[in-house]
Amino acid sequence: MVKLSTRYLEKFITEKDINSFQKKLTTAHFELHSNDIGGKGWLNLPANISSEELLKIKSAAQRINSSSDVLIVIGIGGSYLGARAGIEFLRSLNYNYFLKTKIFFIGNSLSSADIFELLKFCESKDVSINVVSKSGGTIECAVAFRIFRRFLEKKYGKEKSRERIYCTTDPTKGLLKKMACEEGYETFEIPPDVGGRYSVLSAVGLLPLSVAGADVNEILHGASDAMNTFNSLEISKNDCYKYSVLRNILYSKGKAVEILASYESRLKYLLEWWKQLFGESEGKCKKGIFPSSLVFTSDLHSMGQFMQDGNPIFFETIITVLNDPYKILVPHDSLNVDKLNYLVGKTVGYINSQAFLATADAHTYAEVPNIHLQIDDTNEYELGYLIYFFQKSCAISGYMLGVNPFDQPGVEAYKRNMFKLLGRPEDT
Amino acid sequence: MVKLSTRYLEKFITEKDINSFQKKLTTAHFELHSNDIGGKGWLNLPANISSEELLKIKSAAQRINSSSDVLIVIGIGGSYLGARAGIEFLRSLNYNYFLKTKIFFIGNSLSSADIFELLKFCESKDVSINVVSKSGGTIECAVAFRIFRRFLEKKYGKEKSRERIYCTTDPTKGLLKKMACEEGYETFEIPPDVGGRYSVLSAVGLLPLSVAGADVNEILHGASDAMNTFNSLEISKNDCYKYSVLRNILYSKGKAVEILASYESRLKYLLEWWKQLFGESEGKCKKGIFPSSLVFTSDLHSMGQFMQDGNPIFFETIITVLNDPYKILVPHDSLNVDKLNYLVGKTVGYINSQAFLATADAHTYAEVPNIHLQIDDTNEYELGYLIYFFQKSCAISGYMLGVNPFDQPGVEAYKRNMFKLLGRPEDT
Repeated sequence: MVKLSTRYLEKFITEKDINSFQKKLTTAHFELHSNDIGGKGWLNLPANISSEELLKIKSAAQRINSSSDVLIVIGIGGSYLGARAGIEFLRSLNYNYFLKTKIFFIGNSLSSADIFELLKFCESKDVSINVVSKSGGTIECAVAFRIFRRFLEKKYGKEKSRERIYCTTDPTKGLLKKMACEEGYETFEIPPDVGGRYSVLSAVGLLPLSVAGADVNEILHGASDAMNTFNSLEISKNDCYKYSVLRNILYSKGKAVEILASYESRLKYLLEWWKQLFGESEGKCKKGIFPSSLVFTSDLHSMGQFMQDGNPIFFETIITVLNDPYKILVPHDSLNVDKLNYLVGKTVGYINSQAFLATADAHTYAEVPNIHLQIDDTNEYELGYLIYFFQKSCAISGYMLGVNPFDQPGVEAYKRNMFKLLGRPEDT
Repeated sequence: MVKLSTRYLEKFITEKDINSFQKKLTTAHFELHSNDIGGKGWLNLPANISSEELLKIKSAAQRINSSSDVLIVIGIGGSYLGARAGIEFLRSLNYNYFLKTKIFFIGNSLSSADIFELLKFCESKDVSINVVSKSGGTIECAVAFRIFRRFLEKKYGKEKSRERIYCTTDPTKGLLKKMACEEGYETFEIPPDVGGRYSVLSAVGLLPLSVAGADVNEILHGASDAMNTFNSLEISKNDCYKYSVLRNILYSKGKAVEILASYESRLKYLLEWWKQLFGESEGKCKKGIFPSSLVFTSDLHSMGQFMQDGNPIFFETIITVLNDPYKILVPHDSLNVDKLNYLVGKTVGYINSQAFLATADAHTYAEVPNIHLQIDDTNEYELGYLIYFFQKSCAISGYMLGVNPFDQPGVEAYKRNMFKLLGRPEDT
């Protein structure tokens, strides 16, 4: 569950500010829940994903786990961020040291160094590929898929490598779907009415998560609960909508940057996923809150000075995790040269929680508004719940800002230039 | 070498703008090179670090490599960012898969999950520790050091674990220096007149880098060359100072955020290091450019929309790497279902270079100023050169902004609150 606290906002936002956004919120809610435009398939995805698709995902994950030392996930943007965010959320940044089937993400850049290194690492390994692309036409993804398909074919032969390639793509159209049909690769569905950045609760996220050992039903359970929870138009009863309202109020008061920060490093990629979700949904028509992310307390030792005393163009949204299952204690030391004995018997998690309180106070004192989101744990249920929370608050936020939160016309500009420079044939 | 190009700035910055900053630059230069305040020891560090200290670093690295499967570097902020940035720059984000002695960074957060995981990973491994802290009083670092010292002592006994602990700290004072003297740990020097964020070219960075197999002499060679190069007061002849001037001009024209972006993922932590360097140096007196970072082309698929069409409060500084030693070719495919055959015979590095040109054009067209920095390679020489380039441009930039680029008074605020909440004794 996500709980939003406004404790650190009292200096900055009044009851009146919140009430003045009620009309905008109501309009946004009905815009979101109407059938006017596409891209809203994620709204009911936690309930609509078929049990057949889920069985296919789990069965494929089982096969990958038993046949492969490495799963290579090829995808960019929304085709990898959610999966990676989820795996790190549930495991850690170093998840691969603890997985039997290691999961590497590639095809999310044009770095030859990255490809070279992964090819080298996979030389003596058994490998499967999950390529994730709605169209199959994204150049980073298509180039990497060609290279690693060739790698598999050299290793296993064309026939056998077919069993090691899993395509997550549009169910009926696009180059990747075509190739999968011709070659006989197993396919998984990106629902046509779900955009990349809203797709993590489809096979896009669930297949890699399942390979990492996650209970995908629990993820969907959490998301379903969030889906059923966040429908009230009363701001005080709907933390999801409240988050949208608060950030729009702060934006209207001149805060141009939002820093999403967590006190757990395993949320690092969730913050990256959030940046795409909000940045790509809101950043249009010369508007939008610039999304940035930090991991505390680490980054208090790099950006802390700026946050305390620098140009106050930003506000913070802080995610803390309530439960600490690890209970690492500060050990006793009779010499006490480091003078830490006053902490003996305290857990590191407790110290972390005090660091949060101390920092929220210090930053609020320095006129930086803090929105506080608390989740209970870093398990599957919380992951699904949090994902849905952010997706819905993002859509509502975008509508309140007056933009279409489901398109991304701006990303085509550099692609057009690039294809021209690369001499891509006209009919491609 | 770093080459700065203003090709993408012509629409935004005139010759007149640049000339109008000449006086400020001259003042900043003489302020930096005067002996008025402390914290300037990094200016001559590439020449001043003693050959004795370098020999000690290399010898310790050799011992660590031959005795340990894992080196745990305990430090936060400037005590780990530069080392990690350097290792990833020279190797990759996945460097640990290719190192005999794996290097993990801890003590840079209060996450019990991170500590629990590393303890578990190290159970059956031979381990050494490099603890990096000027004072020894930083809580994240001190807590982790206590826990991992205890871990070593349980594994090897108190006596033998002494040979596995290396302290990088102030040469004469502080809790860590005291403990090292009492316990007989080997120590390395953080020069007293070098602040954390400027310390990577001391043992702070060089010891972990040496363990990772880096040629530290070449790093210092690159830094020395930069040190000797960037002294001219003629902006047109000094790319380091030009970078300071350009970003201050853009700031004065309302650009409140700088996005440092690279087209190579291995620069990811160098961008993190840069954020601390600039954020902590400039973010004071309610001033400063908010530093943010992205890795392209990855993040063009998350933040690309915002950069093209969103709230234009930012400018970009783009780092590209000229040489591509990997020469990964797009393979031929007779079926060509993915329609990539027009790229056959092209390297991925070439496509990456075209993506840069295409994006710089698209963003410039969308009124986003781009500063372009090009380095030749990702080797030791270039690393040292680039580090010094940024350090000096940061100091000059801070002086031009009218702040002291070597202090960080704001980071104490949350610490004071925290120690109060934790009940730290007054005399600590």
